[in-house]
Amino acid sequence: MDMLRLAKKLFPICRSITGNGQLETLETIKMQIPLNILEYETGEEYYDWKIPLEWNINGAYIQTESGEKIVDFKNSNLHVAGYSVPYEGTISFEELKKHIHFREDLPEAIPYVTYYHKSDWAFCMSKNQFDKLRRERYTVKIESSLTNGYLRIGEYLKKGKSKKEIWFSTYTCHPSLCNDNLSGIIAGVELVKYLESIGETKYSYRVLFLPETIGPIVYLNEHQNIIDNILGGYVLTHCGDKAPLTYKKSIAENHDIDNMLLRSLERLGKQYSVQPYLPLGSDERQYSSPRFNLAFGSLMRSSHTPKDISNPFQPDWKEYHTSLDNLDLLSIESLTEVIEVYIECIRNHELNAIYKGLYYGEPMLSKHGLYVDPTDDLETAKAVFYFQGFSNGTTSLWDIHDKTKVDINLLAEVASKFEACELVEIVD
Amino acid sequence: MDMLRLAKKLFPICRSITGNGQLETLETIKMQIPLNILEYETGEEYYDWKIPLEWNINGAYIQTESGEKIVDFKNSNLHVAGYSVPYEGTISFEELKKHIHFREDLPEAIPYVTYYHKSDWAFCMSKNQFDKLRRERYTVKIESSLTNGYLRIGEYLKKGKSKKEIWFSTYTCHPSLCNDNLSGIIAGVELVKYLESIGETKYSYRVLFLPETIGPIVYLNEHQNIIDNILGGYVLTHCGDKAPLTYKKSIAENHDIDNMLLRSLERLGKQYSVQPYLPLGSDERQYSSPRFNLAFGSLMRSSHTPKDISNPFQPDWKEYHTSLDNLDLLSIESLTEVIEVYIECIRNHELNAIYKGLYYGEPMLSKHGLYVDPTDDLETAKAVFYFQGFSNGTTSLWDIHDKTKVDINLLAEVASKFEACELVEIVD
Amino acid sequence: MDMLRLAKKLFPICRSITGNGQLETLETIKMQIPLNILEYETGEEYYDWKIPLEWNINGAYIQTESGEKIVDFKNSNLHVAGYSVPYEGTISFEELKKHIHFREDLPEAIPYVTYYHKSDWAFCMSKNQFDKLRRERYTVKIESSLTNGYLRIGEYLKKGKSKKEIWFSTYTCHPSLCNDNLSGIIAGVELVKYLESIGETKYSYRVLFLPETIGPIVYLNEHQNIIDNILGGYVLTHCGDKAPLTYKKSIAENHDIDNMLLRSLERLGKQYSVQPYLPLGSDERQYSSPRFNLAFGSLMRSSHTPKDISNPFQPDWKEYHTSLDNLDLLSIESLTEVIEVYIECIRNHELNAIYKGLYYGEPMLSKHGLYVDPTDDLETAKAVFYFQGFSNGTTSLWDIHDKTKVDINLLAEVASKFEACELVEIVD
Repeated sequence: MDMLRLAKKLFPICRSITGNGQLETLETIKMQIPLNILEYETGEEYYDWKIPLEWNINGAYIQTESGEKIVDFKNSNLHVAGYSVPYEGTISFEELKKHIHFREDLPEAIPYVTYYHKSDWAFCMSKNQFDKLRRERYTVKIESSLTNGYLRIGEYLKKGKSKKEIWFSTYTCHPSLCNDNLSGIIAGVELVKYLESIGETKYSYRVLFLPETIGPIVYLNEHQNIIDNILGGYVLTHCGDKAPLTYKKSIAENHDIDNMLLRSLERLGKQYSVQPYLPLGSDERQYSSPRFNLAFGSLMRSSHTPKDISNPFQPDWKEYHTSLDNLDLLSIESLTEVIEVYIECIRNHELNAIYKGLYYGEPMLSKHGLYVDPTDDLETAKAVFYFQGFSNGTTSLWDIHDKTKVDINLLAEVASKFEACELVEIVD
Repeated sequence: MDMLRLAKKLFPICRSITGNGQLETLETIKMQIPLNILEYETGEEYYDWKIPLEWNINGAYIQTESGEKIVDFKNSNLHVAGYSVPYEGTISFEELKKHIHFREDLPEAIPYVTYYHKSDWAFCMSKNQFDKLRRERYTVKIESSLTNGYLRIGEYLKKGKSKKEIWFSTYTCHPSLCNDNLSGIIAGVELVKYLESIGETKYSYRVLFLPETIGPIVYLNEHQNIIDNILGGYVLTHCGDKAPLTYKKSIAENHDIDNMLLRSLERLGKQYSVQPYLPLGSDERQYSSPRFNLAFGSLMRSSHTPKDISNPFQPDWKEYHTSLDNLDLLSIESLTEVIEVYIECIRNHELNAIYKGLYYGEPMLSKHGLYVDPTDDLETAKAVFYFQGFSNGTTSLWDIHDKTKVDINLLAEVASKFEACELVEIVD
Repeated sequence: MDMLRLAKKLFPICRSITGNGQLETLETIKMQIPLNILEYETGEEYYDWKIPLEWNINGAYIQTESGEKIVDFKNSNLHVAGYSVPYEGTISFEELKKHIHFREDLPEAIPYVTYYHKSDWAFCMSKNQFDKLRRERYTVKIESSLTNGYLRIGEYLKKGKSKKEIWFSTYTCHPSLCNDNLSGIIAGVELVKYLESIGETKYSYRVLFLPETIGPIVYLNEHQNIIDNILGGYVLTHCGDKAPLTYKKSIAENHDIDNMLLRSLERLGKQYSVQPYLPLGSDERQYSSPRFNLAFGSLMRSSHTPKDISNPFQPDWKEYHTSLDNLDLLSIESLTEVIEVYIECIRNHELNAIYKGLYYGEPMLSKHGLYVDPTDDLETAKAVFYFQGFSNGTTSLWDIHDKTKVDINLLAEVASKFEACELVEIVD
């Protein structure tokens, strides 16, 4: 299925951190790529958190005295705040008003609101809709349920030669919102397709589709044994609007996670800006929290972080967390460009090996069939001499490239030949 | 007692590294602040040094043949070199001349001279006085004594939550000299008053009033067990003349001792210059000597170190170690400014904590009553998110402030709340 | 023997990595300086290499049908490729052509070629000579031999107070070539003369005269026990042409090996350029190979490394590895300047000590006879105070000099006095 068709298929589904919408999303993804769907029971505790009851909703409306349904869940799944408790009753305008969210500054937008951590209900509507409400009594119905069930996580793993893992993490808990985060989900699907299309890799790659915040917390808690193997990763989000590229650095700032992504942007000749790490945004907050302290970056178009960080909770793109973040905002061209950079980034990580020479003095190249006469093949001769001379267990292939300007792929090829001769070993 | 009255009271006292003048000085200080006066016996050895005999002096003069006392200790205690041995005799001008110090370049100034390490006597006078001496015989009398007794040190300690100590060290061995070092003594008194006025501190603070050089050597030798607890400190000296502010860095150069002092100057919007460490000046020489290697800085007005360091023994201020360094040179305004910076510096050290999060992933803030809605209180919400996200055991509150521009006091407040919830612990 | 006479004496000898020419060269050197000539048997294996058979040659020529010897080894020992196997026969021009090397781009130059690792023979001649060859049959004779024997290394060692060694390494395997590498051999001889002329040194110094590549491999394999003692060293090569000075840095880039050489250039007021390390050039390739990873720099006139490193195998000087690299290219003035810098460099290494004070607080200088009154001797007083205050086990005399501008020799003198008083100890 192409990216646009998948986006159109996933868009209408009412997702939350649990429930049928999230399951349907994961099953749709699973039709595209190999995916392991993991289930964790509601009520179970993970670190400081507990999985909430599973939330589902069949319908909801607000009806006037004259019987007109002025707000209906059928029209937009944003109309009901996520995790709203079931409710039925006829109430005054004043009472109803306490349960309504709208955006004063965006009169046409329905805001996206969740009630994960309170036991209440609410409707969301546009300012324009709200302004039309008369001072009368309204019949309100929310056909939702909160029941025992599961939190679900989609997991893809490509095992590489090394136990070291690079992660791509994206979240599947937002309802009909497009840049945030159908764009990330589609990027995740495309990266898995790429990983499936290539041969054995050096690193292991893990691509996760999970509900934001609680998803990584549950998954990390259940996979503590692999945390030491994680090199770092990227959070896939905000990949699809038309804004220029922005890279939000990892908490480690100059980690290979950052260096390889930035190198990819450079090698592809992209224009981009860079933002420092802040513990706001998406799931980098969990992965980089003090005890995990993992390096996670994120290549975005519009960023979570505004240019003016005096209010970092309000991104610069006005459509954020409203009904304006819809399919019209999605640019397949923009999304494709982000995926292209991540694919280049995987390639660059794969090339980013450190080798340690096992020889004392130079090896006798001709004895091992490794000697190349510069007059026959100048570039390969350089690659051979530079690789053997700099492979001291601390200098990566990229470092050698930076010192010598020799093509990185040629250095990698030469490295493989030395490895086959058991003259070097890779440093993990 | 206000600073000026204290200065006037202390100025006339004839201080030396031992003796009644030093004791009277410490007792005067003890009337202002809590002080522990420690005594160490003469003749005892400390590291490479031995406490010399206690020196006291009742009077001294030079009398002409006609009975005129042309130089009299009563007029200035600088007239007799410190530790001059007792002497009485009638001698020629030529003989007397060998026992006279004056300053060719400052005809009105009596120089300050000490004979700690030789057994001799000398008079100090102005060039003008010296020029008036005739080629006749003079009767000379020095009523001094060198006896067994004590070296005395005044010690103030405020115990904090941490065993880590910050020191303020000042010297009480100079006779009637004002900038050097009544200004430092008064600054020490004021800092103790401040420390007494505030509640429990994170750090422990130790303020020492001791004779230069031998004082720190004796005190450190007697307190070897606490040396590992010393974060570093400041030498209080040269605080009261009208020159601009100069900070002499610690030997460690970029130590918290330096960073917090420089930050204080910046936060108070002060103009200042910075000098590198040199093992000259005052007691930083002892604290920073190779085996202790402690970081001690010094905020001065006129510095010991001249701009032209080709002769670092001659400070740029001409009054140094002469009778010109008197109460006229002292500016209470200048002194107050130095004390103000040191107080800000104590505040900044107190704020300079590193916390380590005990949670995996983000803690569930609402469960702990720590969640703040950004629409209710934007600044506190930022402080909460940034503190929890950056408290990884290596990032200090100041570092978080520098990254995020969130108010340091707000960060400290949030930190205390997290600490009360046992979500973080302080890194010592 | 002066440098020029030695150069003229060594120039005509036909050297290779083994054989009589190399032995004659070492014996000639041994007449100038104390030298230990070590022998290693052919066929023995060292690390990844094996010592080849000993190669010797008595004569070789190409003769026309009319009996004219158009190429004769007697005229230039470059005419025969090193390690050419013995051969005698009458062959066609077409057959002969396969065994001829010339330089298209340098019609008057005979190239220098070796056949160490193939079993074949070849003649080298100028393009001009080649162009005169007619399509006729030629009688060819190479009177060479490949026999069991020895690889030989000349070794000089000056033992210092410390086991730490600084090496100078030069190669003796090139036939009648002058800048590469009679210049290095002569520099080695002069440095030994200097080392013999001075008293006991702090460091040990080892000067090696050996065949390139296999020489260091054999020697290091046989001296594994001392590798940990090697501070680093310098490869003596390309010291004698008229190009400006170029320093090729060690693989460690900011090692004392580099810092002391660069400091020497600065102190002598030399103009020079700096090149980064590349694992090409001469025996720095062996010393700095991954497992040894030793810091070896090289001060050259013309460098192995061209300015345009896209073809790093072709140095910028056209005479390289041809008959144009002869006595006319050698400038005794240039060579003298390189030796002068290396001698200054030895001096600077000798001064580059780190001392650790054994005292707590300042020592009582007068007690040890170390006190100097600044008014008597300002420079020594500064040296005393600065040395005692900065000798904390990590600050070298050069660091103290850089901080204080006090003369390095004066600091070294003061250091010796403190050492004699057992107040400091040297850090190895």
